[in-house]
Amino acid sequence: MSNEKVLVFGHKNPDTDTICSALVYADLKSKLGMNVEPVRLGEINEETAFALNFFQAEKPRLVENVSNEVEQVALVDHNEFQQSVSDIESVKIIEVIDHHRIANFQTKEPLNFRVEPVGCTTTILHKMYRENNVEITKQMAGLMVSAIISDSLLFKSPTCTDEDVEAAKSLAEIAEINLDEYGLDMLKAGTKLENRSAKQIISIDSKEFPMGEKLVEVAQVNTVDVAEVLARKEEIAEEINATIESKNLEVFVLAITDILEGDSTILTYGNGVAKVEEAFDVAVTENTALLKGVVSRKKQIIPALTKAIG
Amino acid sequence: MSNEKVLVFGHKNPDTDTICSALVYADLKSKLGMNVEPVRLGEINEETAFALNFFQAEKPRLVENVSNEVEQVALVDHNEFQQSVSDIESVKIIEVIDHHRIANFQTKEPLNFRVEPVGCTTTILHKMYRENNVEITKQMAGLMVSAIISDSLLFKSPTCTDEDVEAAKSLAEIAEINLDEYGLDMLKAGTKLENRSAKQIISIDSKEFPMGEKLVEVAQVNTVDVAEVLARKEEIAEEINATIESKNLEVFVLAITDILEGDSTILTYGNGVAKVEEAFDVAVTENTALLKGVVSRKKQIIPALTKAIG
Repeated sequence: MSNEKVLVFGHKNPDTDTICSALVYADLKSKLGMNVEPVRLGEINEETAFALNFFQAEKPRLVENVSNEVEQVALVDHNEFQQSVSDIESVKIIEVIDHHRIANFQTKEPLNFRVEPVGCTTTILHKMYRENNVEITKQMAGLMVSAIISDSLLFKSPTCTDEDVEAAKSLAEIAEINLDEYGLDMLKAGTKLENRSAKQIISIDSKEFPMGEKLVEVAQVNTVDVAEVLARKEEIAEEINATIESKNLEVFVLAITDILEGDSTILTYGNGVAKVEEAFDVAVTENTALLKGVVSRKKQIIPALTKAIG
Repeated sequence: MSNEKVLVFGHKNPDTDTICSALVYADLKSKLGMNVEPVRLGEINEETAFALNFFQAEKPRLVENVSNEVEQVALVDHNEFQQSVSDIESVKIIEVIDHHRIANFQTKEPLNFRVEPVGCTTTILHKMYRENNVEITKQMAGLMVSAIISDSLLFKSPTCTDEDVEAAKSLAEIAEINLDEYGLDMLKAGTKLENRSAKQIISIDSKEFPMGEKLVEVAQVNTVDVAEVLARKEEIAEEINATIESKNLEVFVLAITDILEGDSTILTYGNGVAKVEEAFDVAVTENTALLKGVVSRKKQIIPALTKAIG
């Protein structure tokens, strides 16, 4: 292993898994001798801030580009280039640890690439500590279990696997937390939307997906009060339509996910709204529809949209 | 793990690593409870036939399509769709074990995807036996070490890592072979080109690579007598030019690799020959050039061509 510096980061519009995975990867790899610094590609959301604060972890440094500082990077929690740093094609990717579909990714040379169909990237990182016999500190356990709670919505999401649940239980012990109590507190911290602008609401956790020749954007917010978000429909619609125009999107879907009920209400705009209806077999009325039992963008929303549009 | 049948296979124009990896993956995974059958996408070459015969292993069944028999597949030793079965996009890929660059690969859903920058796929499979505490039989050890010898040209290739060498030594003990003696016998078995047609010579081990908007094909043959191959230049050129025309290739490179010297002589045709000169900083005279110290398509030829063309 060369001692040249490596930056590690997750996707744009970082969520708790992306931020915690970068911090945890850096901890593990630096203990294995790598010269690595965790960085982030955007602002920390309130759920992530709650977790970092609870476990007294510093947030990673914010960067806009990476090729100005390093030649080598590692990616966690994403692989699609359009979700990564803008100059990703100017650096060498030495490793990817992820749990998403693989697409829009390529390298000139072989690398370490590990994707597993589990609910959370830190579930894979947890396994890597064990494989390498590296001890897990209370702080790192706290970050890993926070990411699992976040990605699985406290085990409610269909993306959640037995491996995630087992890892979370084991990590909760090391982190000395009560899973349900800490988990609900953390998730609720992420639902405070009243101080957010409409623009923030549609970009806190938003990702773009090329489907066939079209580009689709799907944003998601968690809440315990869907009506509160819907009351701001007019200003949110304005921001969504501006985004559709500037990015030439086929369709924009905002999923407002009720973390207590385990359902999502969507707001959707663009030429592709009929395809959204087809994808979920629902009628979209005044740009809104309730998707019963839908909480996972990755496992439920994207595959259905890809089938209808791509 | 569902008990639905899975087919596992390596790339088109199978080499020893691709065939042995499919057999070994099926052995390991069936011991772990998967309903899996190894298959192949093309004829076995003479080097591979030598290894299978030596270790009394049956060659995998030949298939042209897979979606007519199964819904799920696993890929070994490749990930790029153009190197895979023609109907790869009609089936679900549940796992990939590979050691090549990643490109032209995508899925709708997350999967198990493990790529490591080692010299041979069976080096990764060897690790997976250990991780899963599955005993390695003499036959499987023989197939794995044969693949490592093949891909590393008996450890001469720059793709060969310490991990490959260690795995080969450990596997040679289980397989009860002398590495150098068996290795040279096996490699020499693959160099018998006198009974091969020119068409076979350029397709025994040939792969296509999209580079930018262009398509490039690079074939490789091993020999202990380069002059013997060059004596047939005229008929080989005819086949190469026919291939260029039918596939609309930018350039075709045939690397004739001297396994004793560790050099390659290339024969190259097409519009992109000037780019080949640029890639390797050599003069191509009458469509031929000597590439000193070049034995690896993956590590030496493809990156240089991609830089010049892509």
